[in-house]
Amino acid sequence: MISIQEIRQARERIQSYIVQTPVLRMHTLDHYLNCEVYIKAENMQVTGAFKLRGALNRALSLSREELERGLVCASSGNHGRGIAYAAKLLGTKATVVMPNTAPAVKVQAIRALGAEVVQCEASERFQVAERICEAQGATLIPPYNDEFVMAGQGTAGLELGEQLPEVNTVILPVSGGGLIGGVSAALKETLPAVRVYGAEPAALPRYSQSLAAGEPTQVPYQQTLADALVSQQPGSKCFPVVRTYVDRVVPVSDEFMLKGMKLLLTEGKILAEPSSCIGIGAVLQGLLPVDRAEKVCFVISGGSVGISQLAMLEEVVL
Amino acid sequence: MISIQEIRQARERIQSYIVQTPVLRMHTLDHYLNCEVYIKAENMQVTGAFKLRGALNRALSLSREELERGLVCASSGNHGRGIAYAAKLLGTKATVVMPNTAPAVKVQAIRALGAEVVQCEASERFQVAERICEAQGATLIPPYNDEFVMAGQGTAGLELGEQLPEVNTVILPVSGGGLIGGVSAALKETLPAVRVYGAEPAALPRYSQSLAAGEPTQVPYQQTLADALVSQQPGSKCFPVVRTYVDRVVPVSDEFMLKGMKLLLTEGKILAEPSSCIGIGAVLQGLLPVDRAEKVCFVISGGSVGISQLAMLEEVVL
Repeated sequence: MISIQEIRQARERIQSYIVQTPVLRMHTLDHYLNCEVYIKAENMQVTGAFKLRGALNRALSLSREELERGLVCASSGNHGRGIAYAAKLLGTKATVVMPNTAPAVKVQAIRALGAEVVQCEASERFQVAERICEAQGATLIPPYNDEFVMAGQGTAGLELGEQLPEVNTVILPVSGGGLIGGVSAALKETLPAVRVYGAEPAALPRYSQSLAAGEPTQVPYQQTLADALVSQQPGSKCFPVVRTYVDRVVPVSDEFMLKGMKLLLTEGKILAEPSSCIGIGAVLQGLLPVDRAEKVCFVISGGSVGISQLAMLEEVVL
Repeated sequence: MISIQEIRQARERIQSYIVQTPVLRMHTLDHYLNCEVYIKAENMQVTGAFKLRGALNRALSLSREELERGLVCASSGNHGRGIAYAAKLLGTKATVVMPNTAPAVKVQAIRALGAEVVQCEASERFQVAERICEAQGATLIPPYNDEFVMAGQGTAGLELGEQLPEVNTVILPVSGGGLIGGVSAALKETLPAVRVYGAEPAALPRYSQSLAAGEPTQVPYQQTLADALVSQQPGSKCFPVVRTYVDRVVPVSDEFMLKGMKLLLTEGKILAEPSSCIGIGAVLQGLLPVDRAEKVCFVISGGSVGISQLAMLEEVVL
């Protein structure tokens, strides 16, 4: 379990390198989502996603010797970009192992930061990363199953609690559980009355099933347009945190996730990647109870999306 | 000339119907624009553009009898949507005369508000609107050349001055001069040290030429992708205000305007219509002097853009 102290320490460690992203009141979305809508815009974070928080917190906790041997990670994109940015910032090298299915825009962004990119099958990416680490003596920074990483992501929750202490409900995208673990711990330890909900792809309902089973459970790999939410099981270190602090996790269809993305873009004027809109999709799909008078904040986790990917929204009906 | 008192009265009149749009710090754009970048996000205004401010201020100044006979306007889109929304809100009818070239997304939005849309050649739209007014006894609300309208748009400047009193430079899109007239008056009367710059399409340099000539001058009609900035001459009531308060207006190419739009969308994660990005285009094109240490706020005037229009950004090189 991570503690609120670890999250506060993470903030001390990383805050001069990141931005405090804005919490925005989205009036134009109220009508569609039937609540008072806010977003925490982590798509406006340096590197375009919250992932930099955890990556930096882990990297800044290494010794000088460890740091000099380099950083390695397996990532569907945003964590890799965070690691690549952290390595550049701290003067060391990074190797990022990415699935073949990662969007080109994410691969390019990581290469542009000077990191080496190795691509492989999504299911093999952790083994490939471990092999590289052993060969180079470098440090593997996991995308979620690590207490420093989780505490780093939790700093977004500390900020949100200060920026909008009157918030009633916070809704986050879920994959391995690093973001929702850190943020739910930060929120519930500082604002105990807040409800925290998670939204995960219906194709990969690893938390819905694991929470029902009472233990981390692996789900079979299935395709989803939520390219940042592809983990097949909860992180073993994330699961107990999520079970303690998160009120509910719901599985959301790709169709409703894309409706959420189109709504946020065309009515809210905010560009986010598909995965980051899954919480809005959950409410549109009627999976989460929200109320007209409630202040609901969606954590918009990232914005790594290319112009060419937006064409898929043309036929989406709101 | 409009006074700061008229702008303050406008604010009293309209503030319960509009939102105070956020001023956002855009860290990710600093590197591209070589200054500390902020935006005033009027694309997040109710109806998706600042135009509602002026439309409402004029409509709320009419007598009950005048209001009941209906509102009419000629508009390339956003003013029409503001009028349509104001009419619905105040329980009267609206007729909006639009150029044949207006984007479908704007036409649909206006019809959805219950207004009647009449389409014609862009050059004939004011005559058509006047004919409808005479036939119906309705009130014509000009898109810019009206003191109530200009004072209404100026309320965005009052807000900005309070939200970011340390701002050094404010850059706005320019067409007839309603927005920049109202906002420059509000800013210079409350924060005299602020610089205010305008950016207009190079195809229709009506202010660049009129300011050089010392009087309102008509320019020949030419095509531009800046579909919200198509006036051929300064408003006679706007010109003296702009001449008094605006430091400089520069003509910007469509190419750099689209670069600005792509930059704001892909790096800033904010969707705005092409016309609204012309100020960013002006800085990218090197037409306006800005400095690394300067706080520069771009007024992002509107966000009425359809998904299908975004494909044109694919080939734009930043």
